[in-house]
Amino acid sequence: MNFSKCRVCGERAIIDLPRHNANFCADHLLQLCRRQVEKAIKDHEMLSPDDRILVAVSGGKDSLAIWDILLDLGYSADGLYIGLGIGEYSDVSGEYTRAFADERGLTLHTIDLRDEYDYDVPTAAKVTRRVPCSACGMSKRHLFDKAALDGGYDVVVTGHNLDDEAAVLFGNTLRWDVEYLARQHPVLPARNGFPKKVKPLMRLTEREMAAWCIVRGIDYQVDECPMAIGNKHLAYKEALNSIERESPGSKSAFYLEFVDKMSPILAGLNQAAAGELNRCAECGAPTTGDTCAFCRLHERVGGHEPVPVEMVLNKKARKAYLAAQAAGE
Amino acid sequence: MNFSKCRVCGERAIIDLPRHNANFCADHLLQLCRRQVEKAIKDHEMLSPDDRILVAVSGGKDSLAIWDILLDLGYSADGLYIGLGIGEYSDVSGEYTRAFADERGLTLHTIDLRDEYDYDVPTAAKVTRRVPCSACGMSKRHLFDKAALDGGYDVVVTGHNLDDEAAVLFGNTLRWDVEYLARQHPVLPARNGFPKKVKPLMRLTEREMAAWCIVRGIDYQVDECPMAIGNKHLAYKEALNSIERESPGSKSAFYLEFVDKMSPILAGLNQAAAGELNRCAECGAPTTGDTCAFCRLHERVGGHEPVPVEMVLNKKARKAYLAAQAAGE
Repeated sequence: MNFSKCRVCGERAIIDLPRHNANFCADHLLQLCRRQVEKAIKDHEMLSPDDRILVAVSGGKDSLAIWDILLDLGYSADGLYIGLGIGEYSDVSGEYTRAFADERGLTLHTIDLRDEYDYDVPTAAKVTRRVPCSACGMSKRHLFDKAALDGGYDVVVTGHNLDDEAAVLFGNTLRWDVEYLARQHPVLPARNGFPKKVKPLMRLTEREMAAWCIVRGIDYQVDECPMAIGNKHLAYKEALNSIERESPGSKSAFYLEFVDKMSPILAGLNQAAAGELNRCAECGAPTTGDTCAFCRLHERVGGHEPVPVEMVLNKKARKAYLAAQAAGE
Repeated sequence: MNFSKCRVCGERAIIDLPRHNANFCADHLLQLCRRQVEKAIKDHEMLSPDDRILVAVSGGKDSLAIWDILLDLGYSADGLYIGLGIGEYSDVSGEYTRAFADERGLTLHTIDLRDEYDYDVPTAAKVTRRVPCSACGMSKRHLFDKAALDGGYDVVVTGHNLDDEAAVLFGNTLRWDVEYLARQHPVLPARNGFPKKVKPLMRLTEREMAAWCIVRGIDYQVDECPMAIGNKHLAYKEALNSIERESPGSKSAFYLEFVDKMSPILAGLNQAAAGELNRCAECGAPTTGDTCAFCRLHERVGGHEPVPVEMVLNKKARKAYLAAQAAGE
């Protein structure tokens, strides 16, 4: 019988990885993932063996995989899940997250935006008339930071993978947004009242993370967030994927060479890291003004009549969303 | 009757330019092109009114258009055409170039690689076993530089347009080739025995240049160079075009913001501009070694049995080339 062979052991392969110009069996795919995470942690001094680690968990493949990999490598790590109130998408994401933690007896903290702050992402998007990803990202960053500091954690781990980082880099590069470029790094050190934040999946793609979850039997939220459909981040991913298909390895070179060669040149330009910050008058979080962006958002949208998901989707996203609903998904 | 109107005069438009969110009639398209060239020249101090200008002319739309625009703006400029020996493609390119110059009574210098140096681009590619664009670009740069210095010209003008520059920038950015990035600028000042070189079409696209030629009645070589088909430069153009279709204006922002915001940061890293160079033992051109790259190529490939175009095409290019031949083109 004719099948592709694992580069390491010659057994039947389950995945081809063109950028490594090789195929891998299940065991050696897991080994590759572990080693890439270890390399990222070592190269960038992300974690120490005794760190108290908080993993930002969404219920998707990346955050569940990195939680699993860290445990597998001998780290101890708790999780934090934030209920964003994005309809059924959020409900299902929360279920996968709880099931993962329960099955393994892990500590999972949860925050529900609607229960605790009286808003959700669709409502925030509608009231502020901005793209949902804006209020969503800001709320998550604030709450992860706060939970890490309040809980005495040494470091926040996020599941941003190589595809995510390359797409963000591509967007910042298309505009040559020098301040954002200077800030894009797989490690943000603790500073100015912010906790240390690290991205140990920086060397692994979303396809590899999906494969990790499948091999390890981890159920995860497969759908894209309905609010993200048609956003530029996905368009940047697609453009990079078309380059990657022509020249395997281009995408990882684009991101990893940036970190190696360009970040040092831009490091001095990172203004945000330089000056002292104020403390938010409401919550004490670091801020450049009097009140932090989270408290200003909360003030503006908290207590507003809830807005359903489909009210804030763009045309393309609404079409996809309604089709999925009609299909009984 | 229903038609698109020129943004300037309201007359019938002949072209839509999504990045300007507007349509233009023939006269106001020409005005826009002239003004963008004037802006590039002024912003980057490319040319002075009394400069002796040498235009590097290929017979394509861009180089014939910039020659025409410079004359139209009151500059005096001679042309230099290099016969690269790329079969019928070169023959046709040369004919368009000579016709343009003859009709206007312009001074056109010509150099034929085969006649004067006993090689051509396909032969150089075959003998060196490198991509044809490598020997071609290097030969052109050397001969344009030499002709400018020997002829007492103040500056060499090339027809690189916004699409070209954005695609080169994209390639250098994908690899974060810091030295190449530091060198990519619309003006290279005279230094170290190299003449000043400028790119006045840096703000205009190839579509606008094609329109300029059509409106002005300039016949030009429409085909892509057969040796370039399937190269990465064209793949980068396509990737940028797909981004541009989604977000008009992205491509020009990518290149122009680089020049404005990133070039100053990288300027200090341009090693090539720093040190003193040697003189080539053969021809006296500036070089980092004893003999310049052109003389080394000439030594290696000059006098070799000529190799026909189709012998050095990649698979994709050969298929396209043979189909075109069969169709009697």
